[in-house]
Amino acid sequence: MRTLKLTLAYDGTAFHGWQIQLNRRTVQQTLTDVLCKITGEMIVVHASGRTDAGVHALGQVASFDTNSRLDANTFCRALSAELPDDIIAIVVEEAPPGFHARRHAKRKRYRYVIHDGPRGDVFRRRYVWRVYRRLDDAAMLRAAQPLIGRHDFAAFESRGSKRSSSVRTIFELMIDRPSVAAGNELHIEVEADGFLYNMVRNIVGILVEVGRGAGDEAWPARALAAADRRTAGPPAPARGLTLVSVDYGPPE
Amino acid sequence: MRTLKLTLAYDGTAFHGWQIQLNRRTVQQTLTDVLCKITGEMIVVHASGRTDAGVHALGQVASFDTNSRLDANTFCRALSAELPDDIIAIVVEEAPPGFHARRHAKRKRYRYVIHDGPRGDVFRRRYVWRVYRRLDDAAMLRAAQPLIGRHDFAAFESRGSKRSSSVRTIFELMIDRPSVAAGNELHIEVEADGFLYNMVRNIVGILVEVGRGAGDEAWPARALAAADRRTAGPPAPARGLTLVSVDYGPPE
Repeated sequence: MRTLKLTLAYDGTAFHGWQIQLNRRTVQQTLTDVLCKITGEMIVVHASGRTDAGVHALGQVASFDTNSRLDANTFCRALSAELPDDIIAIVVEEAPPGFHARRHAKRKRYRYVIHDGPRGDVFRRRYVWRVYRRLDDAAMLRAAQPLIGRHDFAAFESRGSKRSSSVRTIFELMIDRPSVAAGNELHIEVEADGFLYNMVRNIVGILVEVGRGAGDEAWPARALAAADRRTAGPPAPARGLTLVSVDYGPPE
Repeated sequence: MRTLKLTLAYDGTAFHGWQIQLNRRTVQQTLTDVLCKITGEMIVVHASGRTDAGVHALGQVASFDTNSRLDANTFCRALSAELPDDIIAIVVEEAPPGFHARRHAKRKRYRYVIHDGPRGDVFRRRYVWRVYRRLDDAAMLRAAQPLIGRHDFAAFESRGSKRSSSVRTIFELMIDRPSVAAGNELHIEVEADGFLYNMVRNIVGILVEVGRGAGDEAWPARALAAADRRTAGPPAPARGLTLVSVDYGPPE
């Protein structure tokens, strides 16, 4: 028995999220089926975290144990050959015994993409949240600063999670208009040691309210201090969200 | 009665091409339905050219006559509100009476996108042709030069078209690796006074054969001279092709 670490990308549009559900197409179910086909084993795959329906991934990480003797590169090619075209196996690596993609994750990075230009990009519509008014990104950037650091993010946690603590550390919160999108896309990237349920979507939601002038720049800081979800505005939709990468720190 | 010119973008993935067909979702059918809803009229919409199933458009142009008195901008907003999210109405303009999107087109420009990097981009998979070997773009560029200019392109015309002449003029044929795609995409852009059936896909097909070393650099020139479709290699698939723009020349 050995442990493998799989890095994968997926287009979340046609999946009901990561987690296996009865009669639903999910990423975990698809991987389980393909791993069974390759190894003949019923393998339990753990991700760094569950992504919701419609959320995408560029660098999701999953771990699993297998008795297969295929070397890691061959395993990756076998996965590539069998997976549907909305999942890509990027790399398979040997992992230390007991490696667990969720428990051992040190940092995760998400990107949220908003389109606020005069007209949409028809090829990007599954991957951006279209906002029909130009957002004030400078105001959003100022409003976001108080969220950086170690805080209780209870105001940005949707109900339905079972986490014992809502304290997390945001290491980085960048707001950028990359020139490749002709200035019509706003990218919000957040790196943290962990995320509460819907935390990125709730943070983006309040920042967009600030950016469209529906709330003042101090609102996110006030919501953070109040630690009450009801004070912190609506969440952003799932389709603009991508899990970019998961960091496990230096090998021990 | 007045004539309007509509510029539109679409993701061709979920359409059976432009032209109306019984019980098929097509761009022309979708536009006809929406125009009927807006104006109450049964309107015949002409495009600059039919795009095949799976072919995309960033700047397709269509023309139609209507008795509607909506001003052009209001008309465009009404279209935007009613069209499904894989078609975007970019602009509606008043056109001279008798303007016809196909008959009056002077030049059209297509872009073909090939991905030849080590792994695919899951978000771009509907819009690129994935080739699993790095292509020699310098050889392709040299091989393409003899196609530029006024020639009989019979070798690059698929059967099934009814055009009287297969002579066309290619004004530009660019092959580029844009840095935004990290060097993993090859963009082939062709501008001509008109295109024969499957002409871009057939030209791209032979160039890719050259780029992968399956044919020598002089092959496209030989095929052009032979004017025989059977000598010119397989066509590239539809999904990588986008109609970029249509030029009607200066207003008269």
